[in-house]
Amino acid sequence: MADYKLYAFGESGNCYKVALMLALTGTPWQRLPVDFFNGETRTDDFRAVNEMGEAPVLLHDGKVLSQSGVILDYLAEQTGRFGADNADERREILRWMLFDNHKFTSYYATLRFIVGLQKSGESPVTEFLRGRAKSAFAIVDKHLAGRDFLVADRLTIADLSLAGYVFFEEETGLALSAYPNILAWRARIAAMPGWKPPYEMVPHAPPARV
Amino acid sequence: MADYKLYAFGESGNCYKVALMLALTGTPWQRLPVDFFNGETRTDDFRAVNEMGEAPVLLHDGKVLSQSGVILDYLAEQTGRFGADNADERREILRWMLFDNHKFTSYYATLRFIVGLQKSGESPVTEFLRGRAKSAFAIVDKHLAGRDFLVADRLTIADLSLAGYVFFEEETGLALSAYPNILAWRARIAAMPGWKPPYEMVPHAPPARV
Repeated sequence: MADYKLYAFGESGNCYKVALMLALTGTPWQRLPVDFFNGETRTDDFRAVNEMGEAPVLLHDGKVLSQSGVILDYLAEQTGRFGADNADERREILRWMLFDNHKFTSYYATLRFIVGLQKSGESPVTEFLRGRAKSAFAIVDKHLAGRDFLVADRLTIADLSLAGYVFFEEETGLALSAYPNILAWRARIAAMPGWKPPYEMVPHAPPARV
Repeated sequence: MADYKLYAFGESGNCYKVALMLALTGTPWQRLPVDFFNGETRTDDFRAVNEMGEAPVLLHDGKVLSQSGVILDYLAEQTGRFGADNADERREILRWMLFDNHKFTSYYATLRFIVGLQKSGESPVTEFLRGRAKSAFAIVDKHLAGRDFLVADRLTIADLSLAGYVFFEEETGLALSAYPNILAWRARIAAMPGWKPPYEMVPHAPPARV
């Protein structure tokens, strides 16, 4: 019974975060496609679903949930998996998710969008984004030294939030080999039962019509 | 008894968010200064307090809390003010806080840092940041049409998170007059008992030594 429906498209690491949570918890779901490259998230119809104009959006039990962090938190509650065991852990998960939204996913995903998907070449903007992304990656790499996961000695939704984009292979001009602890952590997540790479769970969005 | 201690400096809207929460709840606190413009947040000593290299950091009851969203959530619990009344509100507060960290505060604060504090002039980067900030401001302005506050019919920590930077007056090249609902919401917050403008609660950080 796929009573979870998710607006998602393959190129979005934020959608992948949620798809991965659903996969690792063995939760059936149905995909609602998003024609991102032809501007669907900017249409009035899509904004009526999510005024923020973003995917993913989860529909479940009459609820319409957006922001991958909110959806991960909701699915942790619903499935009893990968959530916090106590108030300290809950705050620590939130701390890393906020850092992810502010500095880790945000700069890296935007860099990868411009360099790897739009392929619009190097510019002062890509240089700026790459510098910011490198700072954030260094902080996470240092934090992961001697740890298996970000918050606890087990996978939590904080890991799924930050790891989303590091599984994509499009060009960014930022070499992940400089961050060995991030690579080891990524491999640890990829070894979890049920893990699949991005485009095996959510197909590519249709290309932009000329 | 000021048993709340907060690493903060005046120019930081993220620090102001927390200082405003403390002011509006009448909570005494003690400031721990941050010599931001001379690189204190990049020192090993500061990173030992917050590995993310950011202010604000709240010290209370043996806890060391960073990320303004985590601190606001903690203070809402501690004071019983401006938090969620139910699970739907809790998720909606989190949704706006994540949007704030990803797109609202983040782009606008970085723009204001470059244009208004560093005063390094216009560039492709400021143009990029201003475009992104305008999109985020338009979404918040539209959401506030016909509403007094972002999530509920009362002030919540979501409002304090998003409003932080709109109280600052440094130049950004983004005219807030284009967002009348944001201006009305800002005025509503400024009318709350205990409200003070940024630099009246937290003094400027020392200027960079030449």
